[in-house]
Amino acid sequence: MSQNFADRLAQSVKSKGNAVLVGIDPRPDQLPSHWIESFQGDVVRAVQEFGTEVVRTVAPLVPAVKFQMAFYEALGPTGMIALEATANCARENGLLVIMDGKRNDIGSTAAAYATAYVGSPEGGPENSSPAWTSDALTINPYLGGEGITPFLQGCRHTGAGLFLLVRTSNPSAGEFQDLIADGKPVYRHVADRMMNWAEPFRGECGYSSLGAVVGATSPAQLAELRQVLRGIWILVPGYGAQGGTAADVAVAFDEQGLGAIVNNSRGITFAYQKSEFATRFGSNWQASVREATLTMIKDLAKHTAKT
Amino acid sequence: MSQNFADRLAQSVKSKGNAVLVGIDPRPDQLPSHWIESFQGDVVRAVQEFGTEVVRTVAPLVPAVKFQMAFYEALGPTGMIALEATANCARENGLLVIMDGKRNDIGSTAAAYATAYVGSPEGGPENSSPAWTSDALTINPYLGGEGITPFLQGCRHTGAGLFLLVRTSNPSAGEFQDLIADGKPVYRHVADRMMNWAEPFRGECGYSSLGAVVGATSPAQLAELRQVLRGIWILVPGYGAQGGTAADVAVAFDEQGLGAIVNNSRGITFAYQKSEFATRFGSNWQASVREATLTMIKDLAKHTAKT
Repeated sequence: MSQNFADRLAQSVKSKGNAVLVGIDPRPDQLPSHWIESFQGDVVRAVQEFGTEVVRTVAPLVPAVKFQMAFYEALGPTGMIALEATANCARENGLLVIMDGKRNDIGSTAAAYATAYVGSPEGGPENSSPAWTSDALTINPYLGGEGITPFLQGCRHTGAGLFLLVRTSNPSAGEFQDLIADGKPVYRHVADRMMNWAEPFRGECGYSSLGAVVGATSPAQLAELRQVLRGIWILVPGYGAQGGTAADVAVAFDEQGLGAIVNNSRGITFAYQKSEFATRFGSNWQASVREATLTMIKDLAKHTAKT
Repeated sequence: MSQNFADRLAQSVKSKGNAVLVGIDPRPDQLPSHWIESFQGDVVRAVQEFGTEVVRTVAPLVPAVKFQMAFYEALGPTGMIALEATANCARENGLLVIMDGKRNDIGSTAAAYATAYVGSPEGGPENSSPAWTSDALTINPYLGGEGITPFLQGCRHTGAGLFLLVRTSNPSAGEFQDLIADGKPVYRHVADRMMNWAEPFRGECGYSSLGAVVGATSPAQLAELRQVLRGIWILVPGYGAQGGTAADVAVAFDEQGLGAIVNNSRGITFAYQKSEFATRFGSNWQASVREATLTMIKDLAKHTAKT
């Protein structure tokens, strides 16, 4: 995967004609009960097969999937094997794989996380790809530039990507991120600082392989950060279940329909729980996944430029 | 493990007579070459057996070990199985296990990380312990209180502990953590805020199961934060290889020798690389681990009150 992640993402968004990022957050207690039962209590296997079914269902429709690592970690070590198997299935089906791990650490430890998910900072033929099936990783900025650099070095060798948490979508996001220092909020310090880090990773599409996470739940901040983060892919969580709308996220796209990918997890993978889908598809939860994905694609298209 | 983590840590520090936290960061390229070779290129097994040897060597001497998860994740999914096996060995040998994962996320995703490493926020008999062998987890504050609460809820049910990153030990730590907002640095906002979160978790020893990470490389900030963080266990990284001295960390302890645990990773596990140990112990790297641990115990004892 030596090509620049930003360019691979742009190509995938163009070829699929949308910027929907399907989030796979397999909470066991949210899986269809008949699905869980069919695996005779083997929760890890039920989760893995659920994930691969989601992957196969959405692969013809969307450019990328995002794995919420926490839900696999919650299953213990065997959950991590299920994660890798599902990520591998996603890649085999032509999807870009974003690992949502929000990893962070300093120096040599950040280098180890880089080795795991974006590639070793040391490069070389034996380090030509990360240890896991992963095209990009979400990372946390609290530790400063020294906690970011090893990830960037890894990306330089492998062409992988990163999404740095800038302004998150949760209700308490502002508690530290919105503190005002030197006349601007902490998240703006992060955003301004990341522009230097991103520059060497700019692809032919005009965007960098160092992207940003900016929630859809604060539309004013999303609009502000879209202006600041020129040439930065924005991963937008918060659409759907968290309250963000297509109109809210439209501002994150450029006139070509590039520059943002919009995540939806529960609203797609657990669409079977909504009465509108349940009445139509019954126990065929895969059909609900497909229909919810198509609905979101149409919803975004109404508010954004055509790709 | 229903007893409060803070009390278990206090008991373990008292019974071992020191507050040394051995960090297990198994970089494959730092393992003794004869050790790696003896596993015929099976790096994961070499790492696992190295870790269990370290555990058995230090178990009679120190209260706790800290696993740097990144180095196991860098080995791919099978590395995670090695991590769990090594953590299990540590528990069987009477050591408290701290998972250094610096995890963080929002709401239900934070709940999944809690389920993994400190216990499910939902409690109940089927959730009486975390999915992994873990007594405490390091967490990152950037997402605010809503990213912390699920971890605290998990700890309430299981008696596990947490260490919140307040001021880290790396050179670029200050880039965002030291920004001044409302007259005080961001890390002080985190420290002040965590006092409320910590209060319900105070044990009989007077300390809370919600601890803090404060680096030893900024002695002035460590002294400041020791004053602010009353009744908070401080996990102090930065001793040894990163430049912190026993005199630097002494300020973190109370008059009983409680209140802080001091991490040393490379300086202990890879002590065999130092000429002072290499000449004495040769290829017996376990003897170097033991001697380096004893040296650190004595070094701290010189500067802190007796336990």
